[in-house]
Amino acid sequence: MSKPTVPELLAQPKEQVLEFLGKIYEHSAWIAEKFYQENIEKEDYDGNIQNVNDLFLAMQSIVDNSSTEEKLELLKAHPDLCAKIDQLKSLTEESQEEQSKAGLASMTDEERSKFGALNEEYKSKFGFPFILAARNATKYTVLSAIEGRVHLTRDVEFAGALVQVSKIAWMRLLAALDTSGHKGFLTCHVLDTQNGCPAEGMRIHLHRLSPPEHAGFVKEFITNDDGRLDGGPALKGEEFIVGTYEWTFYAGDYFARKNAKTSGVPFLNEIPLRFGIDDPAEHYHVPLLVSPWSYSTYRGS
Amino acid sequence: MSKPTVPELLAQPKEQVLEFLGKIYEHSAWIAEKFYQENIEKEDYDGNIQNVNDLFLAMQSIVDNSSTEEKLELLKAHPDLCAKIDQLKSLTEESQEEQSKAGLASMTDEERSKFGALNEEYKSKFGFPFILAARNATKYTVLSAIEGRVHLTRDVEFAGALVQVSKIAWMRLLAALDTSGHKGFLTCHVLDTQNGCPAEGMRIHLHRLSPPEHAGFVKEFITNDDGRLDGGPALKGEEFIVGTYEWTFYAGDYFARKNAKTSGVPFLNEIPLRFGIDDPAEHYHVPLLVSPWSYSTYRGS
Amino acid sequence: MSKPTVPELLAQPKEQVLEFLGKIYEHSAWIAEKFYQENIEKEDYDGNIQNVNDLFLAMQSIVDNSSTEEKLELLKAHPDLCAKIDQLKSLTEESQEEQSKAGLASMTDEERSKFGALNEEYKSKFGFPFILAARNATKYTVLSAIEGRVHLTRDVEFAGALVQVSKIAWMRLLAALDTSGHKGFLTCHVLDTQNGCPAEGMRIHLHRLSPPEHAGFVKEFITNDDGRLDGGPALKGEEFIVGTYEWTFYAGDYFARKNAKTSGVPFLNEIPLRFGIDDPAEHYHVPLLVSPWSYSTYRGS
Amino acid sequence: MSKPTVPELLAQPKEQVLEFLGKIYEHSAWIAEKFYQENIEKEDYDGNIQNVNDLFLAMQSIVDNSSTEEKLELLKAHPDLCAKIDQLKSLTEESQEEQSKAGLASMTDEERSKFGALNEEYKSKFGFPFILAARNATKYTVLSAIEGRVHLTRDVEFAGALVQVSKIAWMRLLAALDTSGHKGFLTCHVLDTQNGCPAEGMRIHLHRLSPPEHAGFVKEFITNDDGRLDGGPALKGEEFIVGTYEWTFYAGDYFARKNAKTSGVPFLNEIPLRFGIDDPAEHYHVPLLVSPWSYSTYRGS
Repeated sequence: MSKPTVPELLAQPKEQVLEFLGKIYEHSAWIAEKFYQENIEKEDYDGNIQNVNDLFLAMQSIVDNSSTEEKLELLKAHPDLCAKIDQLKSLTEESQEEQSKAGLASMTDEERSKFGALNEEYKSKFGFPFILAARNATKYTVLSAIEGRVHLTRDVEFAGALVQVSKIAWMRLLAALDTSGHKGFLTCHVLDTQNGCPAEGMRIHLHRLSPPEHAGFVKEFITNDDGRLDGGPALKGEEFIVGTYEWTFYAGDYFARKNAKTSGVPFLNEIPLRFGIDDPAEHYHVPLLVSPWSYSTYRGS
Repeated sequence: MSKPTVPELLAQPKEQVLEFLGKIYEHSAWIAEKFYQENIEKEDYDGNIQNVNDLFLAMQSIVDNSSTEEKLELLKAHPDLCAKIDQLKSLTEESQEEQSKAGLASMTDEERSKFGALNEEYKSKFGFPFILAARNATKYTVLSAIEGRVHLTRDVEFAGALVQVSKIAWMRLLAALDTSGHKGFLTCHVLDTQNGCPAEGMRIHLHRLSPPEHAGFVKEFITNDDGRLDGGPALKGEEFIVGTYEWTFYAGDYFARKNAKTSGVPFLNEIPLRFGIDDPAEHYHVPLLVSPWSYSTYRGS
Repeated sequence: MSKPTVPELLAQPKEQVLEFLGKIYEHSAWIAEKFYQENIEKEDYDGNIQNVNDLFLAMQSIVDNSSTEEKLELLKAHPDLCAKIDQLKSLTEESQEEQSKAGLASMTDEERSKFGALNEEYKSKFGFPFILAARNATKYTVLSAIEGRVHLTRDVEFAGALVQVSKIAWMRLLAALDTSGHKGFLTCHVLDTQNGCPAEGMRIHLHRLSPPEHAGFVKEFITNDDGRLDGGPALKGEEFIVGTYEWTFYAGDYFARKNAKTSGVPFLNEIPLRFGIDDPAEHYHVPLLVSPWSYSTYRGS
Repeated sequence: MSKPTVPELLAQPKEQVLEFLGKIYEHSAWIAEKFYQENIEKEDYDGNIQNVNDLFLAMQSIVDNSSTEEKLELLKAHPDLCAKIDQLKSLTEESQEEQSKAGLASMTDEERSKFGALNEEYKSKFGFPFILAARNATKYTVLSAIEGRVHLTRDVEFAGALVQVSKIAWMRLLAALDTSGHKGFLTCHVLDTQNGCPAEGMRIHLHRLSPPEHAGFVKEFITNDDGRLDGGPALKGEEFIVGTYEWTFYAGDYFARKNAKTSGVPFLNEIPLRFGIDDPAEHYHVPLLVSPWSYSTYRGS
């Protein structure tokens, strides 16, 4: 069965909606129920929940406004990540292969043992399980995260763990819904900081690195006289897929045109810029400020 | 026969030195001769030319101090790049294969025709051939360079063409000499601009991308509490080879440790940073300033 | 009476130490008492608390390890900022004059009324008073802070308010202790991102802007061939005073030397860089990366 | 008499136009004559020279297309800067006072002597006088410039000196013409690199620092939800005056709103950003990328 859009989902009978949304927050179907009650069932509900952001924010506000005890229950409803890793490790090698190479199952015994000890320390210090929004996480992410977070104060980590929970919810919504009609788009801009002007005529390639089923070369662009891409956004509509991307900026060729003094092997030549798109409804502006000797980028607007 | 070091070269008989250095500047053996006369043959020569930089600077100063007419002759001694491309294109496909894929031989007829026209315009405007230090150049570099440079004033382009000539000389010296004992080295530093501190515990990989015979994974590093690499330079001595390199910074794992608010698919996760090392005798400091939403790098010191 | 150093303070009789430290956390002398008990009075206390950072961290860890109820009491022990503002506003104009111009007393009636409403909303939403570490705060800071923080979830704001409390404690310790023997120092570095090299020969001025009693021109520097300042740190020892500083980089003069193409009125000429020093025991590295068309700075290490 | 606009100037009789433009390039009235001949007097002249950029580019192309000998004559037509300084120094102190404090007349005897020696070296090496577009130059600029440029090769410095000549011409045109109807404008944008979003609600002040007759506070802005200024450009039309400007960004107040962890004395609080506007017909985009621990700016578009 194909994924529903948000309006299609909310148009279904209550029971089906609750079944669908009940899984978004781990073992905490009460959030979906309360969300439904306070929004969809409200007399004056005006249908304002149209996209995944609207839906997420409405559900998350149920969590935000719940009591400290309810929040603690929500945290406690999450499984022990350590147990999950052991389960993964017990799979046949073939099944493991399906997981990412650097994935959780590939933990060495030493790493597993270190994580186990930190996991115990974490649970006993804070009174709730270690939670990590793990879609793109490797064993290194997990170890790095717990090493840092185990040293925080309980107040800070309580708030931080709830952020992880909200991220998991967000990613589950993204995975379960059809967001192809959302309004997000990707743009670019290249500024030449050696000459103080837009970088005109720079060749740029865009690749999608993940999700695997959509990975590959997307398109070639040449910057216009304002250093931007002609023909509108680099990605929009159905092509604007949540995932990982990479620009390649052919900066060396551009600076050859500008008569720039560079070295024989240019310090900067092909510049890869890898970034993630997380929100199907937002504008991602991912520019490059570049001289032959330095560059910077940022999430712009 | 193995490549000589600079002292080994200069210890050879004059004839051999001149044969060796006579090819460094295209069809302009007079530069090597004058260099030899004014340095090695000088009564008070103290042997101060020890590495490739010393040698290059001494030869290049012959060019710098020559007359405008001599400089023009030097430029004119260079072959027509257009003819060279036609020659490459006439090779069998097998031979072409040995050239880089994006290499000059792969110019389409349209591109070749465009380049030919610009090349004629260039020669007739400036009175000397179009010169490009082309070791890492692709057809895109060549086209980009001539498109930009054909519009400069003659004074500016005359000076710029001489810079290309000096770059070619530099790269020929690098290719012909043994520089493995030179003192260059590579260092790194990671600053966390979200938290205003060194990024401690960030995993970094270093790969060498070229030259092909030395390409591959070099090493894994973990930043220390000052955001630097323990154990001295990342590369030095025989490992510090002129070529192209890439750091991979596992920034996503680092920020997971810092409890940073990031999106489900992190905007920045694995950050590739590709850079060239051109000078076997210099310090390359290639740092990263990074938040979950921005980063920058530069040739440091 | 002059301010004690940390060792001098801790060598005093218990009663005096507690009187001194009892004021550091607002109306919460129990923190100083517990600190004293768990550190100074411990049988195996080895005198390791030597500077203001050691002392602060030891006291703050009492707070961090206290119960949620104790933390809430600590927050509630703080006065109502709104009442304090009204008190300031009721002073004679002369007394107000002694406060900063943009200070809290200068709130207009409209601003006061807006702040009052937000303050009520804040207290009723969170159950504790709005706390802001206000040494350098103006009325704009206060309004900006409450506008943002009133919208956070209680968990996040509870943790955030405790951070404010710790900042106040830190600043009170700084104000009450003699830290002139601390080991902090200030360094600089200028990189030329147009030419990919250290900026040699750049003139730099350093001014201290606050505290008022130490404000004024500090020194002129010229960068050396590594883009750094000769003769060690720009500030150290008694000159390294907590306060606000400003570098002035004469970048226009530097680029005139480099033959850089710039406009008639340079886009960048004298570059002011204003920064605060907060910790008398740390290294502040405040560099400049600069081309004629762009610059950046950061807290380095 | 008030300054003419470009169309007003070009509508005057030939003689007057030549008198006006004849002074733009030092003692080289032939440039204005040739410009007039090849543009205004041409049968098919279509009146396309409408603003100061059009006029400058048309005159400068006369220079660019002149012979090497003519260019050398143009350089030689410039006065000796050393003699000019001596003349300034011989003025009464009162007259000197009218010059900038750090101005050329304030050279100490030692500095004058150093400059004199470099000036002689320069002239004898290159065969033309040292030229510096000096409107905003101080004695430091002059000394820095000649120290760097005296070491260049003649080809590079010949091209560079011509760039100085063109800058002087540009600034003389700007000073002599009414450009208040030109289309230039100033915009701003503030990105929060700690949180990966536009910085909403940041207070910004704009001051004009020069020219002296227009110096002063210009306006206060508050960034909108895209981090930009509401109500269009910060400056345009008659307010968009060639000169020096300074933004003050109240970043500390903004980050207080974002609940950012900062130090007691913020590392960054009020951020001054000083920049020059040189071209009355261009768009100046001068943004800020900022976290509590780092910032950068650049000439954008």
